[in-house]
Amino acid sequence: MVRVLVGNDWSEELEEPAGSGWAVQRLVWFARDGDLLVLPVHPEDEFLDYVTSMTGVRRASLRVIVPPPGRLGTGALTADRLADARFLDELRAAVDGRPVDEVFALWPDAVVAELAGALGCTAALEGHGFLSQGGGLLASSKAVFRALAAGVGAPIPDGAVCSDAVRAELHIDRVLGDGGSVILKQDYGSGSDGNEIVSRTPDVPLRGARRLRVVADRAALREYLAERWDWLSVGGRDRVIVERYHPGSRAYFAEFWISDGGVRLGGHGEMRYRPLPEAQVMPATGLDERQLDTLVEGGRRISEGLGALGYRGILSADAVVTPAGEVLFTEYNGRATGSTHIYEIVGKRVVGAGFGTDRVLLERVWPQGWTVPSFADALRRLRESGDVYDPATRRGVVILAAYHPGRKGVMLCFVDENLEAATRREQLVGRLFT
Amino acid sequence: MVRVLVGNDWSEELEEPAGSGWAVQRLVWFARDGDLLVLPVHPEDEFLDYVTSMTGVRRASLRVIVPPPGRLGTGALTADRLADARFLDELRAAVDGRPVDEVFALWPDAVVAELAGALGCTAALEGHGFLSQGGGLLASSKAVFRALAAGVGAPIPDGAVCSDAVRAELHIDRVLGDGGSVILKQDYGSGSDGNEIVSRTPDVPLRGARRLRVVADRAALREYLAERWDWLSVGGRDRVIVERYHPGSRAYFAEFWISDGGVRLGGHGEMRYRPLPEAQVMPATGLDERQLDTLVEGGRRISEGLGALGYRGILSADAVVTPAGEVLFTEYNGRATGSTHIYEIVGKRVVGAGFGTDRVLLERVWPQGWTVPSFADALRRLRESGDVYDPATRRGVVILAAYHPGRKGVMLCFVDENLEAATRREQLVGRLFT
Repeated sequence: MVRVLVGNDWSEELEEPAGSGWAVQRLVWFARDGDLLVLPVHPEDEFLDYVTSMTGVRRASLRVIVPPPGRLGTGALTADRLADARFLDELRAAVDGRPVDEVFALWPDAVVAELAGALGCTAALEGHGFLSQGGGLLASSKAVFRALAAGVGAPIPDGAVCSDAVRAELHIDRVLGDGGSVILKQDYGSGSDGNEIVSRTPDVPLRGARRLRVVADRAALREYLAERWDWLSVGGRDRVIVERYHPGSRAYFAEFWISDGGVRLGGHGEMRYRPLPEAQVMPATGLDERQLDTLVEGGRRISEGLGALGYRGILSADAVVTPAGEVLFTEYNGRATGSTHIYEIVGKRVVGAGFGTDRVLLERVWPQGWTVPSFADALRRLRESGDVYDPATRRGVVILAAYHPGRKGVMLCFVDENLEAATRREQLVGRLFT
Repeated sequence: MVRVLVGNDWSEELEEPAGSGWAVQRLVWFARDGDLLVLPVHPEDEFLDYVTSMTGVRRASLRVIVPPPGRLGTGALTADRLADARFLDELRAAVDGRPVDEVFALWPDAVVAELAGALGCTAALEGHGFLSQGGGLLASSKAVFRALAAGVGAPIPDGAVCSDAVRAELHIDRVLGDGGSVILKQDYGSGSDGNEIVSRTPDVPLRGARRLRVVADRAALREYLAERWDWLSVGGRDRVIVERYHPGSRAYFAEFWISDGGVRLGGHGEMRYRPLPEAQVMPATGLDERQLDTLVEGGRRISEGLGALGYRGILSADAVVTPAGEVLFTEYNGRATGSTHIYEIVGKRVVGAGFGTDRVLLERVWPQGWTVPSFADALRRLRESGDVYDPATRRGVVILAAYHPGRKGVMLCFVDENLEAATRREQLVGRLFT
């Protein structure tokens, strides 16, 4: 038996990939002994050594296969690379006639279904039929999300899904007229990049959007929409989400694994923004029992709905908790998210049983102003200072991702008994990199 | 208690309505005593008299409400007409404080959810939340259909859902390379209008498409796609369906009613093409037991999948039966279709218990060359010849639809003990109109 892991990213059917092959290297966290890893670029030896030492996987048992460069070079596993004859030959040779018992991909793309087909192992990819017909896109659509969430009775913010600016204007104006503000979302945006907030006044704190646009009246709103509709709708391709924005909310996720056997809760956490994503805390903190229950049960219902369509894989249901304490679902992300390897591998496998009881995880997006020349150097500094994660104490810093040359940094995860201790450690560690 | 019936059509969010208010008058078939009917134009008195005489509804108990003309005039119930303040006042006055126990619309549009909201009766519209977020569009998308059908294990023809011409070319070429032909479908086409067939040779009989394009080789295919992609994808808005075409197949539907209480089979039938739709036979004929079972059980699974998302209403699952006897699902239509009033009202209510056992229905699209100056005249001729439907014998001709001035005709439905008898009657009746 052998597993094939695919480090693909955001679907090429949605936008031209701009990846550098950096983020998808988190795939290594999911590896088990004997796995075949398909990645757009070869990870650094230091990163492979480090991650496998943390997960207890025999590094030598892994095989990383990198297809020849494709139409966009080596930044992403584009369809042409995954269909390349030399690559397929190499992958088949590595499989070496053994049955493939699982194909695991970061993104539920039709090209992954085609890869499984080329390997003759479609049964190893749950949801193969659904994926082969492009169903994976439905699990990243905010328009589909809103219909489904409303359909299964998960609470969502007031709003609408709009095919045209006239309809959007009606709904935005209705919310602004109540004294509210609105967040507009591209159907397939991610990481807050496809969102803008619209308000009649400038005093709205931003979260999850790059900018605030003040529209004093209906005429200004119409002008704004005329200017931005093309961007919001991606040139008229997609519908646009209009959603009442709740200033001062906190953002959470509950992530599920949907399989032929049913739906299981993977993990949950808080996402912190300033105004863009800057940190995650797992498990979720700051929720009362009813709120956590609403988050998990609503997310489960959403997952069951998508599972009934045929989707198999990971689904993160995102929600805000308003200052009034309401839990409102805002989107879903059907893929291995930026949280999956943290709770599932670092939390459950590296930290182990204490994760969520006597240990929490604080993931920090590499802050501006911090800098380190290489992965090896980041690890060396953490080892020398004694801050690196220690299995004996189950405390310290885990490096989550490969080195990012553009940001000159790595993603860090602070493991400690509570958030305060993790935050203290973070302040100490900052001195190593500033 | 009162019911509100909405004669809306194809969603304005998908295309500019081009309706003349003719087709949606079939709404009258669904009326029960005391209903309020919202229609784009006033039906002719003769049509209202006739349909209610057939269904046994007290014509005087019905109230037809026509909103003031909208941005496109009176052809369709556009969003502006359904939100018109005078119309809403008139509708509220007609409701007269009674509880609304059902809102029934021909098309599951977000504007229907908004109408229910304006009337304060969202609970009377099952699936209100799903509809309010534009979920109804998912039930007419052939792209969503293919993922869902594959996901729930309903058999579909070989093919793919393609965001770009490069991907489409790969899949088309694969099928053509096998000696097959391909039907390309717009995501939201209807009535065969959005379909084209592509083949390497011209000897392919057309069904369900306006034209055949011969592409002798890969270069010709590429040229064809370059020319037609904009049309196929509706200017890049939608994905395009590539589907292996099975010449010589017959086309069937199984239609379901999805409610909070579950999924029930409404009816099934055969759709006949030459190459465009020309007739329907209900119930389905010419299927063996296994084929009928596959049609109904596959359609049920598809309906349950869409129901799990939150969709409520009517769903027709369409399938072809290939010359080899395989049943393959090809699309679904989530709305009151051109079949719904026939099996549900003419079949079950007008014909009654014998429908499907000792009586079949043959619906005939008004043939070219037939002509009649008015609805009243068509009815008079059928009465005088003795061909009009007779409740005593449960045989004869039912007029299904209002008069169509463009076609100078009406849709006819022949009720008889079998298809042969219905076809004989049709030949006799032809003399009345030629």
